[in-house]
Amino acid sequence: MQAVESGEADYAVLPIENSSAGAVSDNYDLLIKYHNYIVAETYVTVNHALLGLPGARLEDIHTVFSHPQALMQSSEYLNSNRQWNQVSVKNTAVAAKKVLEDGDVTQAAVASETAGRLYGLKVLKSSINYNKNNTTRFIILAKKPLYREAADKVSICFEAPHRSGSLYNLLGNFIFNNVNMVMIESRPIPGRNWEYRFFVDIEGNLSQPAVVNALNGIRSEAAVLRILGNY
Amino acid sequence: MQAVESGEADYAVLPIENSSAGAVSDNYDLLIKYHNYIVAETYVTVNHALLGLPGARLEDIHTVFSHPQALMQSSEYLNSNRQWNQVSVKNTAVAAKKVLEDGDVTQAAVASETAGRLYGLKVLKSSINYNKNNTTRFIILAKKPLYREAADKVSICFEAPHRSGSLYNLLGNFIFNNVNMVMIESRPIPGRNWEYRFFVDIEGNLSQPAVVNALNGIRSEAAVLRILGNY
Repeated sequence: MQAVESGEADYAVLPIENSSAGAVSDNYDLLIKYHNYIVAETYVTVNHALLGLPGARLEDIHTVFSHPQALMQSSEYLNSNRQWNQVSVKNTAVAAKKVLEDGDVTQAAVASETAGRLYGLKVLKSSINYNKNNTTRFIILAKKPLYREAADKVSICFEAPHRSGSLYNLLGNFIFNNVNMVMIESRPIPGRNWEYRFFVDIEGNLSQPAVVNALNGIRSEAAVLRILGNY
Repeated sequence: MQAVESGEADYAVLPIENSSAGAVSDNYDLLIKYHNYIVAETYVTVNHALLGLPGARLEDIHTVFSHPQALMQSSEYLNSNRQWNQVSVKNTAVAAKKVLEDGDVTQAAVASETAGRLYGLKVLKSSINYNKNNTTRFIILAKKPLYREAADKVSICFEAPHRSGSLYNLLGNFIFNNVNMVMIESRPIPGRNWEYRFFVDIEGNLSQPAVVNALNGIRSEAAVLRILGNY
């Protein structure tokens, strides 16, 4: 996101939501920290395997490394092995690399089978994600907005003022304009306890009067409104 | 939650939301997995310190252990030390205990100063949470609902059917009945990609006609409605 904002990279690809584990909260915060625009989205099926050293056996495993989201997506299987310590690391590839480098047969990683082949690890158990259609929605971001006529989703973010009824009034703008919300996610505003930013995805295009009316209504009531993209 | 449901314990106390890090998603899922009721809530100020062995120095630290929420709440400070590995463990007390037991001066824990005293650790840096009013909202749950006349918050959970406009229609029930939402949080429904459960806190009491009307409206449109508590 930093590289896109500074012009060093053309695009950023961020996982934003998983069908089993839900929102990737930290990445919502990045949408605010950096001033890039969502220009597209894509859905990727994710299959996790339990990977160990070539000589490892399932019954020897003591510690399992992975990204917190991958641990959550495989929680049913992992939690059924109560003696396993689950340890979070930066991403699933780091987990696979760590198992290879530590050379300890009691360690395993939750990562893709592709990562397993890359690091020469053995599949101890395949497809351990409890949702067999485990899918992650990724958004693609660029420094400048890109509006296409066929775009049918608008992502926005607004801050609700800290007074009774503010969320009610803000969401009323969508409802009274017949604009459909397909996603709503709230995140705390740093340094302002119990005040929230709302991330909302609506159906439509910024050329439609109903969408424009709803956003104008929000703009007049919210402390801050940002249009994150129309794609 | 399991112990409360089975009658083994009278109450469960769950952290549900932090003023810096946001929702504690896993605990929202526990509200559905177990059939307990929220009977009260309380706010607790949380101060994190960086703790090491008595002989440790800040410049020797290589790995920092804590609960993912504590790492997030201290992320500004921790991320400014790029050479530190951040490792998640079950809770902050486990992190402090691990540092004591491993006896390695390159390890530190993010935990309360109280935990530091309990495990004989030294405060390497105090108050490392970036929000100085860092506060966690805890909910108290019991096996049976407890309705008090003075209760002014109702927590509910409903599933939105998977068709365009369903969230719009559901939230309309609050807006048309003048019922104020103070919190909305969505979680994926396991096994049903891109369908959501919504957790909503509203102002009011189950004895108020507007609240009853709104909930009846939701009940007639949502696949599932659960009243989690009125407190």
